[in-house]
Amino acid sequence: MLKSKVAVLTAYQKPLEVREYEVDDTLGAGEALARVEMAGICGTDVHLWKGELPIPVPVILGHESAGRIERLGPGLEKDWSGQPLAVGDRVVWASSIVCGECYYCRIKRTPTRCLKRKAYGISYCCDEAPHLRGGYSEWILLRAGSSIFKLPDVLPFESIVGAGCALNTALQGIERIGVEMGDTVVVQGAGPVGLAALAVAKTVVVGGPAHRLKMALEFGADAVVSLEEYGTVEARRKAVFDAVGEYGADVVLECVGHPSAVPEGFELCRDGGKYLVLGQYANAGNVEFNPHIITKKQLTVMGSWAFEPRHVQGAVDFLARSAKWRDLPGR
Amino acid sequence: MLKSKVAVLTAYQKPLEVREYEVDDTLGAGEALARVEMAGICGTDVHLWKGELPIPVPVILGHESAGRIERLGPGLEKDWSGQPLAVGDRVVWASSIVCGECYYCRIKRTPTRCLKRKAYGISYCCDEAPHLRGGYSEWILLRAGSSIFKLPDVLPFESIVGAGCALNTALQGIERIGVEMGDTVVVQGAGPVGLAALAVAKTVVVGGPAHRLKMALEFGADAVVSLEEYGTVEARRKAVFDAVGEYGADVVLECVGHPSAVPEGFELCRDGGKYLVLGQYANAGNVEFNPHIITKKQLTVMGSWAFEPRHVQGAVDFLARSAKWRDLPGR
Amino acid sequence: MLKSKVAVLTAYQKPLEVREYEVDDTLGAGEALARVEMAGICGTDVHLWKGELPIPVPVILGHESAGRIERLGPGLEKDWSGQPLAVGDRVVWASSIVCGECYYCRIKRTPTRCLKRKAYGISYCCDEAPHLRGGYSEWILLRAGSSIFKLPDVLPFESIVGAGCALNTALQGIERIGVEMGDTVVVQGAGPVGLAALAVAKTVVVGGPAHRLKMALEFGADAVVSLEEYGTVEARRKAVFDAVGEYGADVVLECVGHPSAVPEGFELCRDGGKYLVLGQYANAGNVEFNPHIITKKQLTVMGSWAFEPRHVQGAVDFLARSAKWRDLPGR
Amino acid sequence: MLKSKVAVLTAYQKPLEVREYEVDDTLGAGEALARVEMAGICGTDVHLWKGELPIPVPVILGHESAGRIERLGPGLEKDWSGQPLAVGDRVVWASSIVCGECYYCRIKRTPTRCLKRKAYGISYCCDEAPHLRGGYSEWILLRAGSSIFKLPDVLPFESIVGAGCALNTALQGIERIGVEMGDTVVVQGAGPVGLAALAVAKTVVVGGPAHRLKMALEFGADAVVSLEEYGTVEARRKAVFDAVGEYGADVVLECVGHPSAVPEGFELCRDGGKYLVLGQYANAGNVEFNPHIITKKQLTVMGSWAFEPRHVQGAVDFLARSAKWRDLPGR
Repeated sequence: MLKSKVAVLTAYQKPLEVREYEVDDTLGAGEALARVEMAGICGTDVHLWKGELPIPVPVILGHESAGRIERLGPGLEKDWSGQPLAVGDRVVWASSIVCGECYYCRIKRTPTRCLKRKAYGISYCCDEAPHLRGGYSEWILLRAGSSIFKLPDVLPFESIVGAGCALNTALQGIERIGVEMGDTVVVQGAGPVGLAALAVAKTVVVGGPAHRLKMALEFGADAVVSLEEYGTVEARRKAVFDAVGEYGADVVLECVGHPSAVPEGFELCRDGGKYLVLGQYANAGNVEFNPHIITKKQLTVMGSWAFEPRHVQGAVDFLARSAKWRDLPGR
Repeated sequence: MLKSKVAVLTAYQKPLEVREYEVDDTLGAGEALARVEMAGICGTDVHLWKGELPIPVPVILGHESAGRIERLGPGLEKDWSGQPLAVGDRVVWASSIVCGECYYCRIKRTPTRCLKRKAYGISYCCDEAPHLRGGYSEWILLRAGSSIFKLPDVLPFESIVGAGCALNTALQGIERIGVEMGDTVVVQGAGPVGLAALAVAKTVVVGGPAHRLKMALEFGADAVVSLEEYGTVEARRKAVFDAVGEYGADVVLECVGHPSAVPEGFELCRDGGKYLVLGQYANAGNVEFNPHIITKKQLTVMGSWAFEPRHVQGAVDFLARSAKWRDLPGR
Repeated sequence: MLKSKVAVLTAYQKPLEVREYEVDDTLGAGEALARVEMAGICGTDVHLWKGELPIPVPVILGHESAGRIERLGPGLEKDWSGQPLAVGDRVVWASSIVCGECYYCRIKRTPTRCLKRKAYGISYCCDEAPHLRGGYSEWILLRAGSSIFKLPDVLPFESIVGAGCALNTALQGIERIGVEMGDTVVVQGAGPVGLAALAVAKTVVVGGPAHRLKMALEFGADAVVSLEEYGTVEARRKAVFDAVGEYGADVVLECVGHPSAVPEGFELCRDGGKYLVLGQYANAGNVEFNPHIITKKQLTVMGSWAFEPRHVQGAVDFLARSAKWRDLPGR
Repeated sequence: MLKSKVAVLTAYQKPLEVREYEVDDTLGAGEALARVEMAGICGTDVHLWKGELPIPVPVILGHESAGRIERLGPGLEKDWSGQPLAVGDRVVWASSIVCGECYYCRIKRTPTRCLKRKAYGISYCCDEAPHLRGGYSEWILLRAGSSIFKLPDVLPFESIVGAGCALNTALQGIERIGVEMGDTVVVQGAGPVGLAALAVAKTVVVGGPAHRLKMALEFGADAVVSLEEYGTVEARRKAVFDAVGEYGADVVLECVGHPSAVPEGFELCRDGGKYLVLGQYANAGNVEFNPHIITKKQLTVMGSWAFEPRHVQGAVDFLARSAKWRDLPGR
């Protein structure tokens, strides 16, 4: 019988442990078995490892992964977008599955907040059969109802895994906050989400380190503001205003994750501006802020949590079009 | 020559001082002289008195006032809505005047954040002629460009001053946040802004004291949650969820002014809900909050600052229609 | 074996024919058998009968019906909103089922335009087993995936079937066009959709005959304009403008179905107003109009097709709350 | 005294007549005298000449013009955006002036439909002093309240007049209809408005003649569909669907002006798509259409009339950034 080596988080803040499971390849209706070809380490994996979001342990981490279809269960003949699916196809899958039936899925149409949402590499205790529900594994068993996307030939695994859930998350966030033609945009953060946001908007990037900012300029940033060079909130605010104009930015996208980025970001918006809280995926604790600034500046502040399958489709399409994201060495 | 007694704030946190000025009734083009018939004390007046918003002193306070036209300057023949204006007319005026030319007025169409906005009863040092730019005065001199509204006969001064800037402010805030058919709404605060918000939406009111909550029920609240009865954030959250349903409110309107209301309010929203920061008009300091909640709950948080003249028109129309607001004794 | 009498449209514009089918009550997973207690005749049924929308014949008509659960297939334990479902429960069901997988369901989140949408009483040829897929029948077999809604005790069959798909359709239409606080609204049409739109908005109703307009006033219309009394477009336009003000209505809801209502309705909008094309469910042919009016008046014109299950839930909730709709004799 | 040669439309469909007026250069407060350096012939000028929009005659046509400040009236020291203004400055001016006080300007914030709007080159009978209110003239007298924009040094007159009111109009239209990230866009029309729309969106252009379509590709169109090559509505629809995908376009921008473009354009939209009626500036008569398509396809159809001064500012900024629009020979 086929066996799969896996990397398991057995307890928060402990080294991952390599285990081996037997692969139960008797697939039910709609299920699939995939060979994992590549898996990414996301900033969220670091938060998960630290224990900043409550997840079951032991768990096979890995929610940004891609691979090849090895076997398809009865009735699974098409990918999410309706293309035919076959053994051997190169695919990526949305990390999460929603119930489609709860208050948030049905009444409020907000499936990213589904009351029963489960994500590969995050929500499945690997003590329970069939075990293989994370990407840090040679093989993954995809549940019925998974959103599977066939990869265009032009799109290497490096590209889709390199963009990872960052690009999907940025797509949903930018959809939610809205970016209008002519808006000036500031991106806080030069990590993967920040760079992804950049790829679809005109921007100033506030972040670091230097090689990230260099990459941001290559990706089309109009200006960058280095956290190393501008060591205070006030210095960064001034540098941003020099770049976007004297009243501040129309839209600021927070892609940092540290709570202190939020009150700093409010300062970067113009009156009436929009602020997207995209990076606070993990619970990294409290921060002080002055709510008067929200009233006085008439800010619109929005959160965005993860993404829906249609954002994965958007990411696949975007990457297939964009030579820059495909070919950049070292992503 | 006509003289006017006025109540002046000479220094923060000092008793108002009664002074007397001569009334310079030689009016320029577009100016008006009005006899003040009634003036309200707004929560903002308390903040101003404490020094929580920077204003010049000495100042004649009073930004919620109404009266009768005594004299009209050349060319001032119509009110804001185009009705003929004559000596003796009962009128109210928008407290603020904007420049119409700055970045916020022109490019971003956000006149409440006009860079040169000045408000009667707030922005004018009364040492400077013509002195009479506040409502705590027998007479007020209205500048050219003031938005003056003729009062319908059915609308007594008690009603328009009683509703005050609270109703105008609530109208702009509700317009900004948007309330959709079928939304559950929670109002935080049972002061004038909270009651005004109530008048135009279906709601649960969280506030006090008891006589305010009684009034809230008379105004149509579906439920009230007393700060005195429910002494903790968690107890109030539970009481609100009992009233609006197990996931929380679609929309929460903060009409309190204390910074701690804001993180409490985030807890009252459902995932994907909307939160209006309407009450933080004054700078009452910092509060701790956890930005993770904005990302995770996908909240939309909006501020709203003051109002435009069209909201005063809306308030006049609303009050003229609404027997409840006209006739309530003791407002 | 149980038998069911049914009313069948065998050919367009022919009298319905009464047939009898055996009831195959061996239910698959998620299926249900219901006793039809009441079924409505919708304006759309008239269009279907005339052949104005392409449907298969022979067909058991009836897409507005309600009844009692007689038997539940394996796994069907809850209604759409998550309430427990049992034999004997009084229920209504959404007429249509969507695939959840096509371009419109997935990418564009517009399930009312699902490429594989099928509706009870409309889309099922009754020659094919299990035959009983329409409401003009003693028994109906509900497919797996049907949206079933338990009726609150206060809600009689008369009320939910009387409101019919008109109320659901009005709810989706009003959601799409948006009605803002303070908007003046004109409803074109005093049929069921028009009256339903009225129930959730402030309005002037343009329609007839007299007993419909009387009902419109009882339902809360601010004014009515009779097609019989005002025989020309220009006369009606004048009557509407007298009621809503000299520039026309902020929002006009077309609930008529005759093509000529559309160019007439454009005339009723103010510049910058919104016009909802809700009534043109059937293809009733062409009409002349002048597109210059859309540019010049800067109109927003929206269509809305049918409804989603969440609108049925909204209708059930609305009717349960609204004594007026429950108790009106003769609906 | 200075004299100005002017080109006058004395009667519809007659050749323009050259006249000469004396220039009254005694400027009132806020007025300006400008030397016209360049003036464009807009498609609207053709409609005006035909008499398709009611304007006074005789009139000096020319609403797309630019020039140099020759003299500034008292108090006119800054341009619309707040930059200092001086004699000799190269400037463009918004063609229209609004009252800022009427129902549309104030309550509905729709100044392009101002009840007292007047436009240079359109609304001023040149028999009335000071005569020089159109761009087909050596000199133009700009009224107080005109929106004047200083041209960046990099921006030649050819560019700003070449883009003309087409670009401003496209900016307002695209703002109104909204174009979201990832939307497919079809532009109907390859005239100046169509090309301008193209410059700010990803598109397929349907139009002609061939040299226009060649220009469209140079401006970044993803595909073009030639009216000459595809002679029927159905052939064009198929060509467009081949380019944007099997369901049609998310957004279609009508920039044609012929009424028949509108029903054809409805066919090009996907279900739930958006259709902008931008080109029907003149009254070119009626067309037949089937309103059923708006309901069934759940279309959003919007008109957009002319532009506000902030769109002129947007156009100046856009052109200054865009080498393509500055340098294209032959525009």
